[in-house]
Amino acid sequence: MSQTLEDSAKQRLVIENVRPSVDGGAFPAKVVSGWPVTVSADIFCDGHEVIAAAVVLSDGSEHRMRHLGNDAWEAEVRFAGIGHDRFAIRAWRDPFGTWRRDALKKLGAGQDISVELQELDALLAPMRARRGEGAEMKALKTAAKRRDIDTILSDEIAGFMARSGPRQSLTLSADHRVHVARERAAFSAWYELFPRSLGPGDRHGTFRDVIAHLPYVAGMGFDVLYFPPIHPIGQTNRKGRNNSLTAEPDDIGSPYAIGSDEGGMDALHPELGTMADFEALVAAAQGHGLEIAMDIALNASPDHPWIREHPEWFERRPDGTIKYAENPPKKYEDIVNFRYYLDGEAPNLPLWSAIRDLFLFWAGHGVMVFRVDNPHTKPFPFWEWLIADVQKRFPEAIFLSEAFTRPKVMKRLAKIGFDQSYTYYTWRNTKDELTEYLTELTTEECRDYMRPNFFTNTPDINPIFNQTSGRPGFRTRVIMAASLSGNWGMYSGFELCEGEPLPGREEYRDSEKYERRPRDFDAPDSIREDVRLINELRRSEPAMKDFRNLRFFPAFHDEVLYYGRFDPGTRSYLLFHVLIDPFRPAEFEFEVPLWEFGLPDDASVEVQDMLQGNSFTWHGKAHRLELDPVERPYAIWKLTPPGGVS
Amino acid sequence: MSQTLEDSAKQRLVIENVRPSVDGGAFPAKVVSGWPVTVSADIFCDGHEVIAAAVVLSDGSEHRMRHLGNDAWEAEVRFAGIGHDRFAIRAWRDPFGTWRRDALKKLGAGQDISVELQELDALLAPMRARRGEGAEMKALKTAAKRRDIDTILSDEIAGFMARSGPRQSLTLSADHRVHVARERAAFSAWYELFPRSLGPGDRHGTFRDVIAHLPYVAGMGFDVLYFPPIHPIGQTNRKGRNNSLTAEPDDIGSPYAIGSDEGGMDALHPELGTMADFEALVAAAQGHGLEIAMDIALNASPDHPWIREHPEWFERRPDGTIKYAENPPKKYEDIVNFRYYLDGEAPNLPLWSAIRDLFLFWAGHGVMVFRVDNPHTKPFPFWEWLIADVQKRFPEAIFLSEAFTRPKVMKRLAKIGFDQSYTYYTWRNTKDELTEYLTELTTEECRDYMRPNFFTNTPDINPIFNQTSGRPGFRTRVIMAASLSGNWGMYSGFELCEGEPLPGREEYRDSEKYERRPRDFDAPDSIREDVRLINELRRSEPAMKDFRNLRFFPAFHDEVLYYGRFDPGTRSYLLFHVLIDPFRPAEFEFEVPLWEFGLPDDASVEVQDMLQGNSFTWHGKAHRLELDPVERPYAIWKLTPPGGVS
Repeated sequence: MSQTLEDSAKQRLVIENVRPSVDGGAFPAKVVSGWPVTVSADIFCDGHEVIAAAVVLSDGSEHRMRHLGNDAWEAEVRFAGIGHDRFAIRAWRDPFGTWRRDALKKLGAGQDISVELQELDALLAPMRARRGEGAEMKALKTAAKRRDIDTILSDEIAGFMARSGPRQSLTLSADHRVHVARERAAFSAWYELFPRSLGPGDRHGTFRDVIAHLPYVAGMGFDVLYFPPIHPIGQTNRKGRNNSLTAEPDDIGSPYAIGSDEGGMDALHPELGTMADFEALVAAAQGHGLEIAMDIALNASPDHPWIREHPEWFERRPDGTIKYAENPPKKYEDIVNFRYYLDGEAPNLPLWSAIRDLFLFWAGHGVMVFRVDNPHTKPFPFWEWLIADVQKRFPEAIFLSEAFTRPKVMKRLAKIGFDQSYTYYTWRNTKDELTEYLTELTTEECRDYMRPNFFTNTPDINPIFNQTSGRPGFRTRVIMAASLSGNWGMYSGFELCEGEPLPGREEYRDSEKYERRPRDFDAPDSIREDVRLINELRRSEPAMKDFRNLRFFPAFHDEVLYYGRFDPGTRSYLLFHVLIDPFRPAEFEFEVPLWEFGLPDDASVEVQDMLQGNSFTWHGKAHRLELDPVERPYAIWKLTPPGGVS
Repeated sequence: MSQTLEDSAKQRLVIENVRPSVDGGAFPAKVVSGWPVTVSADIFCDGHEVIAAAVVLSDGSEHRMRHLGNDAWEAEVRFAGIGHDRFAIRAWRDPFGTWRRDALKKLGAGQDISVELQELDALLAPMRARRGEGAEMKALKTAAKRRDIDTILSDEIAGFMARSGPRQSLTLSADHRVHVARERAAFSAWYELFPRSLGPGDRHGTFRDVIAHLPYVAGMGFDVLYFPPIHPIGQTNRKGRNNSLTAEPDDIGSPYAIGSDEGGMDALHPELGTMADFEALVAAAQGHGLEIAMDIALNASPDHPWIREHPEWFERRPDGTIKYAENPPKKYEDIVNFRYYLDGEAPNLPLWSAIRDLFLFWAGHGVMVFRVDNPHTKPFPFWEWLIADVQKRFPEAIFLSEAFTRPKVMKRLAKIGFDQSYTYYTWRNTKDELTEYLTELTTEECRDYMRPNFFTNTPDINPIFNQTSGRPGFRTRVIMAASLSGNWGMYSGFELCEGEPLPGREEYRDSEKYERRPRDFDAPDSIREDVRLINELRRSEPAMKDFRNLRFFPAFHDEVLYYGRFDPGTRSYLLFHVLIDPFRPAEFEFEVPLWEFGLPDDASVEVQDMLQGNSFTWHGKAHRLELDPVERPYAIWKLTPPGGVS
């Protein structure tokens, strides 16, 4: 018999289907520092002995699991700090628990247990009184000696022995990896703007203009302020307004064509200001509770300094020209791509390092949130290495993946380290579409590694729905983005109900990508009060934090989405009704989910209308409500179920 | 930069979600020698290059995968031989495929591709003409030199380059383990009988009596003949008839209390015959196409020789008595359990080896099929080691797990090596219950490792349904067991519609476990013709082999189960209607699944009634059928859809 069999034989209990887990441990599950995490597993042993199990954290602390039935066990734990961590599960046979269970059954059947009491002596013999357990241990040993069955079988002794009794066949699971992030990785509200648009009149905006605008952004309750690229913009093949191939002399170009004689991805556009101005902005934002998020777009304009300095970082064609980006037959001649692999095989590691150093450079200037443009067109191993390396030096760094592509590609980017992911939210409009998509995000395996960021719009996406929805559709899309997802975002102008498209396109007319777009932020149609309200609710109600608590409830109308966000631990219970149709009112029945509180269908529950502020009582399960696109396109309720029940 | 990054960077493509796979590779997936296996995976790369992929078997053969869309790929492969094997997936970027796709798009848009043709030269430069590819390679190089675009873009060259063109970023998956079994592991029909009952009149049956009975068993189309234990039976605390605690002098005892002065688990009950008789039976059975399956029940009677010879293999109590089996407050004083672990911790390896040697002993006497009694009350690591060790020496050995217990425990036994598993079939009676259970078995992850064996009944289970169903219920339960599962079994007497219970129990009255039970196998109510018919169909129709091809179809009646078994490769298409209610006829509509053949709802399909033998045509999708408990409790149809469509 080999030593291997001796070892494997000792793993007598089965610990399987451990959650959270990603691809059988190939990637860490994502958790948030300080947030509760439910660790679950299927645990069992051969035979009929009583067993017990616990989650063990890397600090050695043990968290007992409870049996839910059908061999499913779980415990709630919390990870402290940020960075990579791990947990394991240990399970064991509990000989005292088995002895007690069987003794109770035999006594109940009137059987003699004198031999069983001798077995108890043998079971207790190896146990010594440990510090702090002396009294209970002594009481048990005395009771065993005196055959004092009532004491031996008492709840006190049972509790003591569950904690301190012998453990048999102790079995340890493999380590399971987690990545612990700070809360903003999972719970954030983003506002996107182009700094160059903030100058008054025709003047190019500056970082100082952004500082002056911070109260407006912070006043709506956002906590991340995100800019498209703020670097020098190329001249060669510069795009004109509305993406025209020829730029007029006064066209300012797309900020995504990065690099000119004035510098590249580690430089600032000179008209925006100096590095000192930028650092002043980062500091001022912080004073308003805002973090600056930077856009990392790995697109070089043909004028980027690296092309001169590092020709080996770019592909060339047989005719000697540099290879520009294309999606045949479309050509993007204002952008050239990096050469991540040499001859398609060996990684171009000096380039990889240089890009990594860009992130480190901006992190060194106070930027800890990075929105990465089109990560799916760069190699996966590159991102996996880069994110781990940056977060090793700056554990608080957060990466948002801007990959609007196929589902498995988006999920892979999340697995390999992106903390947040853009989503299909802008293309999910009907009740069915939203229900199906959110059910996937909150209940399928991706819930363990993918954190959606629901943007209502972006400079690239002028949602078809909002092109005709009018103000009601802007209000409901904001409310849903902010209450269905832990992270959400809005690109400037959405709060002003801007939706004019290039005809037949999902693009904005006069897109801000190619020109300045000054706005009147005090326009009367602004929905900033809705934005402020929902962001305020996100901050005040614990139920709004972990979006995976989302549950859909029955509202009997095809145009009404009805859902809840419940946090029993803090008794934070919210219900949302949203009218999806922006044109027609809806009157409908809905069910108050009394069953979620263990209440009968005729129970009553206190409720507060979070828009109007008034409180009242809902009697029974069935209720009617009317929503109206203009007057009341959504309703938010805070429930207070009878005390003690949760 | 570490070497590790250089290596991981080369894994540029993603190969994930590989199937078949069990618990992320913790256990081998189960396959059958020579049967088709669909290997699938999600495969993709960053960017937009054309990629390709193949399954690689351990003999080095490469089987190209096809892209199903949404990054899902699959290929059909077959494993030869029996024993442990493995496969891997390799994927790569196809530079010629990408070049060709883009060139076609550019030409379609009227763009010049002269620089692209220079790129083609560079792409082809490293390629040399290999043996057998000389002509195509030469043609391509000539065409490239001449700028002969039509030839370069021809289908012939595309096919040649898909086979032989350069591969970039070649990425290899991990090895995925499979266990390859002979067909009987997945496809078998079992008949169970007590040899001792086969003697005429009051005489104890013998192996010779079994030999005389073989034509009856083989005539019904079975291929495994299985006996409860055939070893000497203990005297101490022997159970009497109907499980009474006191045996009369002439009571023959339960064969599950194994061992007496006449020998233990490696001996034969003297009244059944000698080892020579047994070997003669094994040989005679083989002549009838039957394999003998032995019952391995690790229950020693208090008289088993091992108790005397190896006292350390059994638990003792403080009063010096040997520990008998119990499920408090119930006691099983005719059976003692083995001591698999010493002090509950170290494996009792001499005992483990001795039990392993029992399997080897019987395998040495020609038994290659083992039904293991209550494996879930013995340690999982013990079985995992034992099965692997026995199958290393006897790769054709098959293990059936008799674990009627919680689902996860049953599944674990299948994962660790049991080839077949008893199931909940006897407790699944309604249309909903059967549909839900079969959907789990055929579509959930257990399909990769658990092979159900649907027994209609066992000596321990007299199904409640059959206690009152009368003959119609015996017929339908046989038909469903044999057509819903690859493996099925029947315990003697079921074909005679025996169902008299101990009142209020799921047990047979006068159970054969405790007494002989001679039968008139020619009784007029026998349903052996149904058994013969379904076993014959299983042998003649390829669609009956892999039970995972099961599909349910719409029959608009709550008491009618309607399903299909289709094997497109051999054009074997069967439909089954089964009337579950044994008392009332049912007339109902059903849909011929024309959509499965890509046919419109008004198409016609040839159909043969497999009971009556006549053939005719079904026109259109909707049809009516009447089933009747007595005249026609089930129908079986063989379809012949229009040729070429499959």
